[in-house]
Amino acid sequence: MPEPSPPSPAAPVVLSPSAGGIAPSEAELARLGRIGTDWQRAIGDRASWQGALPVDPTLKVGVGQGEAAGRFEPVALADAAGQPVVEAEGPPAGLASRLRRVLIGPPLRSSAVVQERMRKLVALPILGSDALSSVAYGPEAMLAVLVLAGSAGLGLTFPVAAAIAVLMIAVGLSYRQTVRAYPRGGGSYIVATDNLGRGPGLVAAAGLITDYVLTVAVSTASGIAAITSAVPSLAPYALELGLVGIVALCAGNLRGVKQAGNLFAFPTYLFIAAVGLVIVVGLVDAASRGFAAEPHPPVVATEGVGLLLVLRAFSSGATAMTGIEAISDGVPAFRPPEWRNARTTLTAMVSALLFLFVGTVVLVQLEGVIPMADETVLSQLAHDTVGSGVLYWVVQISTAAVLLLAANTAFSDFPRLLFFLARDRNAPLAFLRMGDRLAFSNGILLLTAAAIALYVGFDGKTSRLIPLFAVGVFLAFTLSQSGMVVHWWRGREAGWRRSLAFNAVGAVLSAAVLLIAGLTKFTEGAWVVALLIPALVLVFSRVHRYYMGVRAAVALPDDEAAAAPRRGRIVPHRWGDGAPGDGAGGPGALAGAGSAAGERADAPDELALMTVVCLTTLDLPALRALAYAASLGQPVLAVHISPDEDDARRFAKRWAAWGDHLPLEIVSSPYRAVVAPLTRYLEALAAQRRDLTLTVVVPQQVAGRWWMQPLHDHVGRRLHRALRARPGIIVTIVPFHL
Amino acid sequence: MPEPSPPSPAAPVVLSPSAGGIAPSEAELARLGRIGTDWQRAIGDRASWQGALPVDPTLKVGVGQGEAAGRFEPVALADAAGQPVVEAEGPPAGLASRLRRVLIGPPLRSSAVVQERMRKLVALPILGSDALSSVAYGPEAMLAVLVLAGSAGLGLTFPVAAAIAVLMIAVGLSYRQTVRAYPRGGGSYIVATDNLGRGPGLVAAAGLITDYVLTVAVSTASGIAAITSAVPSLAPYALELGLVGIVALCAGNLRGVKQAGNLFAFPTYLFIAAVGLVIVVGLVDAASRGFAAEPHPPVVATEGVGLLLVLRAFSSGATAMTGIEAISDGVPAFRPPEWRNARTTLTAMVSALLFLFVGTVVLVQLEGVIPMADETVLSQLAHDTVGSGVLYWVVQISTAAVLLLAANTAFSDFPRLLFFLARDRNAPLAFLRMGDRLAFSNGILLLTAAAIALYVGFDGKTSRLIPLFAVGVFLAFTLSQSGMVVHWWRGREAGWRRSLAFNAVGAVLSAAVLLIAGLTKFTEGAWVVALLIPALVLVFSRVHRYYMGVRAAVALPDDEAAAAPRRGRIVPHRWGDGAPGDGAGGPGALAGAGSAAGERADAPDELALMTVVCLTTLDLPALRALAYAASLGQPVLAVHISPDEDDARRFAKRWAAWGDHLPLEIVSSPYRAVVAPLTRYLEALAAQRRDLTLTVVVPQQVAGRWWMQPLHDHVGRRLHRALRARPGIIVTIVPFHL
Repeated sequence: MPEPSPPSPAAPVVLSPSAGGIAPSEAELARLGRIGTDWQRAIGDRASWQGALPVDPTLKVGVGQGEAAGRFEPVALADAAGQPVVEAEGPPAGLASRLRRVLIGPPLRSSAVVQERMRKLVALPILGSDALSSVAYGPEAMLAVLVLAGSAGLGLTFPVAAAIAVLMIAVGLSYRQTVRAYPRGGGSYIVATDNLGRGPGLVAAAGLITDYVLTVAVSTASGIAAITSAVPSLAPYALELGLVGIVALCAGNLRGVKQAGNLFAFPTYLFIAAVGLVIVVGLVDAASRGFAAEPHPPVVATEGVGLLLVLRAFSSGATAMTGIEAISDGVPAFRPPEWRNARTTLTAMVSALLFLFVGTVVLVQLEGVIPMADETVLSQLAHDTVGSGVLYWVVQISTAAVLLLAANTAFSDFPRLLFFLARDRNAPLAFLRMGDRLAFSNGILLLTAAAIALYVGFDGKTSRLIPLFAVGVFLAFTLSQSGMVVHWWRGREAGWRRSLAFNAVGAVLSAAVLLIAGLTKFTEGAWVVALLIPALVLVFSRVHRYYMGVRAAVALPDDEAAAAPRRGRIVPHRWGDGAPGDGAGGPGALAGAGSAAGERADAPDELALMTVVCLTTLDLPALRALAYAASLGQPVLAVHISPDEDDARRFAKRWAAWGDHLPLEIVSSPYRAVVAPLTRYLEALAAQRRDLTLTVVVPQQVAGRWWMQPLHDHVGRRLHRALRARPGIIVTIVPFHL
Repeated sequence: MPEPSPPSPAAPVVLSPSAGGIAPSEAELARLGRIGTDWQRAIGDRASWQGALPVDPTLKVGVGQGEAAGRFEPVALADAAGQPVVEAEGPPAGLASRLRRVLIGPPLRSSAVVQERMRKLVALPILGSDALSSVAYGPEAMLAVLVLAGSAGLGLTFPVAAAIAVLMIAVGLSYRQTVRAYPRGGGSYIVATDNLGRGPGLVAAAGLITDYVLTVAVSTASGIAAITSAVPSLAPYALELGLVGIVALCAGNLRGVKQAGNLFAFPTYLFIAAVGLVIVVGLVDAASRGFAAEPHPPVVATEGVGLLLVLRAFSSGATAMTGIEAISDGVPAFRPPEWRNARTTLTAMVSALLFLFVGTVVLVQLEGVIPMADETVLSQLAHDTVGSGVLYWVVQISTAAVLLLAANTAFSDFPRLLFFLARDRNAPLAFLRMGDRLAFSNGILLLTAAAIALYVGFDGKTSRLIPLFAVGVFLAFTLSQSGMVVHWWRGREAGWRRSLAFNAVGAVLSAAVLLIAGLTKFTEGAWVVALLIPALVLVFSRVHRYYMGVRAAVALPDDEAAAAPRRGRIVPHRWGDGAPGDGAGGPGALAGAGSAAGERADAPDELALMTVVCLTTLDLPALRALAYAASLGQPVLAVHISPDEDDARRFAKRWAAWGDHLPLEIVSSPYRAVVAPLTRYLEALAAQRRDLTLTVVVPQQVAGRWWMQPLHDHVGRRLHRALRARPGIIVTIVPFHL
């Protein structure tokens, strides 16, 4: 069977709830028709089946929506009294779902998915918060490395910062090309898959996944540092505050926080303004004293100045660029002409980023500020320039807010990436599922768990998390921009040489940073990411292979495949018709007939069925299960499991009194177990006739309250678990409600 | 219906695996016969059913055991090739069960339950280890209170110890009466239930349960203290060592450690000999200096001498008596004449206990020893008398060993008590179940968990656990001996006055200790027990009431009860016969017919059945489920759940191509949920015909490996959980193995 190709990654990106579905091909419909022919023969006239339904399946009685509903029309639910069920009620109300309702709000209809279009002025803060907020930790991370070499190290601040600024420009120009080429949205996963193939795409996805998790962890750690810098008395609770922040983001995103433009625009613009003000005031101050740098506090050099130190400082400082790719990801969210507006916004964002980054670094030198354990560099700069009044608080609060927004960006990008991965069958299908609130709940929960693990594992310290950061980010950058190089080379549209050059420069520089970060930070934590990324790629590949196997297994067999096993089939035989049993021919006589014979999509008359009722006693639930089994109209065998002779005798006495209406076997269980011997007995029965489908009926007392459940044994459930892997055995639990 | 009375607690104590079973009464057999008559009418000749079995249920083919097996004979299991299954194999071998096999050994047959009879010399160490080992902590606990009042307090050691010695004699004499009256074993629960009623019996059981848990915790803590006294460098790992000890006891008991006489006798006798030697050497030493007491180290009095202090010291010291009741519990384990041998052993044990207790206390005074944080009193005494050589090590090792044995006693008594409670339906039936190794695994695991919680919660410190101990012990003593008073008063056998007097004194003194311990130790930890005991009694009562309710619910209805609802029944109607559906009469039309109508033990022809197949797509597993549903011979309805219009259209197209052989309804799920709308739809269907039994068939892909399971959704399982509480709906999962 040809493997159905996954939807092209270049196809329009629609996050609809049924995006996982595949339209039926002509061949598939033809196969369905052939299978249906067998049914026609087996069940004869359809009307006789349909007329026998004892209930009205449309539930339309009394609902009266006025519209004549065809057979394939969706039905509206009516309750027992015929009243239409109000759809907004959603799932049935248990305690858990009521709690969930309070926490994340009422469910939203699928039709509530809307594609908001953003103005540039709104898009800049929304898509730019991640990149711009990086200024809060990037320069500080760079300085924290340089200061290890004392004054001599700090003297290298400008050259290193200049290299980073060049990198920003190069990557920014490179992404401008991506925006033009992928007006439908060009995330690294899509661009890499599209141009370099599935493997590099998965590597890019793995890099992005670590990137998103680290964005949450680092932004939270850095945001909390902004708060504890301003309120040192909160410092002992920094870890707890960060956890509260991550959980709040999770809850907010499960609610499906709309990316309300104004709400998001305000802190980002405030942050740009506040830090800009700090820079300007600082420069004016410095100008008044002739740009003479104030001396920094005395520092002890613990390392010499060397290439390694410079490279480490460079790769730490490069984290100031994280998030720069967000706009190329979100092109479809712009108003038309999308790609042009996105490009303008990208240029504006990179300019703002450059201004903040360079301004901060210059001011650090002028004010003689060095990184300290209990106060962020940005907070020190604010203290030095605008004092400790209202303006200082504005700087700190807007910093914390914009970092929170950056973390929030990851909460919308991460589940979306998993959606794409799941759509291409590289990740569990559970990530395709939209929750009540149209949010990808599973992705959000996974991100929360991973971010908390990382945040707590690295003690909530920005400085300890930074070494992990650059690897994933620049891996994704490199693959995405290499993909673009291939894209231009293949397409050779107008101006392809220029675009290819920009992307090539971006790719080479990104690759250089990736290499530098991976090598110099390996022992400081980058090894975590270096192990994680191949592990993730392996998981994606295994999941993909598995789903492809499943797809082949459940697909309808085509003609040749269907014909082959059929030739060797057992003669169709229906047991319910009272045909004499020939099963006594001996166990294993038919064992060669193929173990999954009972699981083919045969017409109903080709299934050989038998019902086995498993009983531990002969009470009302047991008699009920017997009645149910007998009414299925197949041969019935009752099986009793006895721990000892006394018990077997008691059961036999009751059975005889009842009238011995069904064949009974008593299975002795010398080890007192119930499920294990039953499993073996049923397997031995099934082994006699491989084509047989056994329906195993087990009575089960169901307690009224959940806390009463442990007072009952759960033979049915355990039997179901034990027999799950066994083809041809179906376990049916017949509940008896107390 | 009359409530079947639980087996009398005075009945012979047999721990057989089917002890929970009740022999059928004549009335019950008659009821079964009447129900069978309905079946006779419904299914006609039994032979036609039996002949139709497609397999040989006896599995005897090829096994050839030579014996002609009757229909009610237990069958021996044969595998697919007709080879008999070796019974010793027990449960099927998964990784978990193989691991378990290594840890706790192969399963044992029920017939391996043997009642070992013990000689007195073996019984003394086995049943006496608990009481005798109490000497390791009882005197120390007493001194630890008295030392709070400095020298003046320590001066009261003798009077307090004398009171405890009197108490020991009184309780010992009292239990001699119990041994005579209850040759079958007279545990506190049984004696209290038997003579005072169910309520006091449950209170005694609750007291015993806290007693057993504390025995494990205190003995472990004290045993570890004996070890760390000898090897102070182990002190930092005391808590961990104790946990290892408890877990080792748990594992050993899950293996079903045989109480091998020699193994148990050795440490106990060694302990008696070693501590006896310490006492004798100490007394000889003291005699050589004219019994002049050595001065104790200077102590600072933090409290004055007062009645409260004395009472607290008394109730702490009384923990030296814990375990004294063990012999009266274990009378049936003695060789005949059981009660006389048990009585002799009891006297010997109390004598040894008195000797060790009084000797220790006297020696403490003579040697001027006071309790210290890092060395036990017993270790100090041993150092002072036999030095630090081999003899010292013998004392410490035998002390630790006998304390371990004492803890082990609780591991056999606790599950046995729960067995009795479960047999009388006061505790979950799971405690009736004997594990693979004939041990009551559930009770052992529960005790382990509770003991670990207590041990860790109180930091593994004997001194912190002691205040909790006396309450439960003396509560059980009081109730047991009060019960004996009632017993003698009722029976008035020969010599009843004397026995009654002994028991009355024992009861009054025990009650006094209970009161003293409860009041003086309340704030130090006794409140835990004071809360726990009523809570346990409440749980026992609720469990009992629940099981009695279940018993009434599942019992076969007698004539009047059965006749009453039958009169109002719906006309029997079998849907599988192709009778025209009259269900269109409207939803709710028959809603008054009683919600559990479908769950009565009716004959098969009185059940109205319908099958609903729930589909999300139309692939091979789905077609298989449809074929299975259709072959059940009942009316079939297919239901598809669609998240949106696109999906509904795709499904409808496939369905039409297949041939539209069955009625189909498409349920729209605007909130994308699958299970919730299906549940509502099915409930609405069922509400139309309350007498209908719906079989809900759900296809389920089953992955080959467990770790692949999360890659599939589990609609069937979730549906089953959601519909569990709903009468008349049976969920059948049709597996499709990949």
